[in-house]
Amino acid sequence: MPILFLADLTPAALATWTSALQEALGDEPVVTWTGDAASAPAPDVLADVEVAVAANPRPGCLARLPGLRFIQSAWAGVDSLLADSTLPQVPLARLIDPQLSSDMAEAVLGHVLILHRQVPAYRAQQALAQWAPLPQPRLAERRVGILGMGAMGQASAALLARTGFAVTGWSRSGRGAMPGVPVAGGAEGLERVLAQADILVNLLPLTVQTRGLLDARALARLPRGAGLVNAGRGDHVVLPDLLAALDTGQVSHAVLDVFAAEPLPPDDPLWRRVDVTITPHVAAPTDPGSAARAMAANIARWRAGQPVAGLVDRAQGY
Amino acid sequence: MPILFLADLTPAALATWTSALQEALGDEPVVTWTGDAASAPAPDVLADVEVAVAANPRPGCLARLPGLRFIQSAWAGVDSLLADSTLPQVPLARLIDPQLSSDMAEAVLGHVLILHRQVPAYRAQQALAQWAPLPQPRLAERRVGILGMGAMGQASAALLARTGFAVTGWSRSGRGAMPGVPVAGGAEGLERVLAQADILVNLLPLTVQTRGLLDARALARLPRGAGLVNAGRGDHVVLPDLLAALDTGQVSHAVLDVFAAEPLPPDDPLWRRVDVTITPHVAAPTDPGSAARAMAANIARWRAGQPVAGLVDRAQGY
Repeated sequence: MPILFLADLTPAALATWTSALQEALGDEPVVTWTGDAASAPAPDVLADVEVAVAANPRPGCLARLPGLRFIQSAWAGVDSLLADSTLPQVPLARLIDPQLSSDMAEAVLGHVLILHRQVPAYRAQQALAQWAPLPQPRLAERRVGILGMGAMGQASAALLARTGFAVTGWSRSGRGAMPGVPVAGGAEGLERVLAQADILVNLLPLTVQTRGLLDARALARLPRGAGLVNAGRGDHVVLPDLLAALDTGQVSHAVLDVFAAEPLPPDDPLWRRVDVTITPHVAAPTDPGSAARAMAANIARWRAGQPVAGLVDRAQGY
Repeated sequence: MPILFLADLTPAALATWTSALQEALGDEPVVTWTGDAASAPAPDVLADVEVAVAANPRPGCLARLPGLRFIQSAWAGVDSLLADSTLPQVPLARLIDPQLSSDMAEAVLGHVLILHRQVPAYRAQQALAQWAPLPQPRLAERRVGILGMGAMGQASAALLARTGFAVTGWSRSGRGAMPGVPVAGGAEGLERVLAQADILVNLLPLTVQTRGLLDARALARLPRGAGLVNAGRGDHVVLPDLLAALDTGQVSHAVLDVFAAEPLPPDDPLWRRVDVTITPHVAAPTDPGSAARAMAANIARWRAGQPVAGLVDRAQGY
């Protein structure tokens, strides 16, 4: 029985992914479909599909698989997938890939260190040819708040804590604590974590509950001059509220890797802000090789009746 | 017998340092002198001085201490001190302070991570409102070369290696190796380290041998597009050669924390280069409290006839 790879990607990416998946899945044939009607697999092939791997599938495509029993997302975030109202009600797993988590952790550590050492302020001084050493808090005194304590949040928190930062996590449930990293939960816990976050890192999944979470009220809770790293989703941030907080100095600098619309349009005024560092959704790019191996292992777990990694709770949205 | 603190600093810095030193030295009286003739301590006080702590002493001042037997530098670098041709030939120790080493290591890790993740290239894209994810090498594949394997070089190498980078060190003698960090020595070893340094970090002491070490020839040895972090001394780099290497793309980005003349003059064209990040000698600012404690402990070791930390070999210049 073939595994359907539903992926609306560029031809080059599609070829890389298909070959990585085929290699990871061994004998199981992979059938690739962009979702384009003209290149649809034959109806009897589609009818046979029990397992689909989804990378930006076109809405409605998964609904055309009458025998579908399991969906494995090729991405860690399933917000786009869940936005398809025709998505079949079968078990759905988001990607859990240790490579993705360590890539995210290293990006987060780099940006947090640079915010900690006030390099954006020194860049602003550089633009004015100004030489002015700033008072420098110690690393162990820098309180870093991590929103979202899933696989990527935990990996980032662990690396930050190991490097010496004072790290606190927040997750809806309060789960995800690790040695040296307390985790708060719920609305009241969020207020506490925000109030202590000299540097705030957002790695939340995008859900009905977390959309627009970083609004004027949340940003006002941060210590004055806090730094922000958003590597979750663009829609977590109410952008006009963030710009207002940057304008007043409530937030000193924002590193934004994700945006409500990607690519960020060339005429977006965000590009020109010196108090915003823009990276083009590269904090944790999914690696086809390691992702394919992680997905193949997860599909094998599903087949064996074992618990799958990253099983999505549709009521929670992740 | 008083300890003479010879320091040409601002009045505020002088007060902070004097009080930190007095606290660290306990019962031993500290006499502070900027080197200004008008405020010189009485001749009988100067005659009694066996130990001097030196923070930017004016040339010639140390030579006025007939009973001087030990000089403790308040800085890790003693190049300025050794430039005083009247410097008495008594044992001289440079500052070895674990706080300084860990501050340096965290700054180096931050800059290396940001170079590794190509953030300077993304900043250049941001200036052009350009969204273009770049191929991203893995952290474990990034070869970082550290020039100078003293206390700060070792701390930086250890933190980089622990974070997963492939680190090689270089020191004149070849000493300083640690688990996971091989160290090459000599001229031939330098060639090898340069040729493998995707990111080169300079933490050498400034000596006759190392002045101008990073010239056109050395920079040409680096892999094309290498990143550079200079937190040693400005005079290690032949600046016109570095600018030429940046112009051709041989060096992709340079983070410069130190300069031949500090503060860097406001009209220096370096300020305006987008391929150079300038920080005002803040990679490892000396902390008066921890430095005073380290110096007091070293003075106690000297008094007890124990080996002192950071004893300078004048023939080597550090």
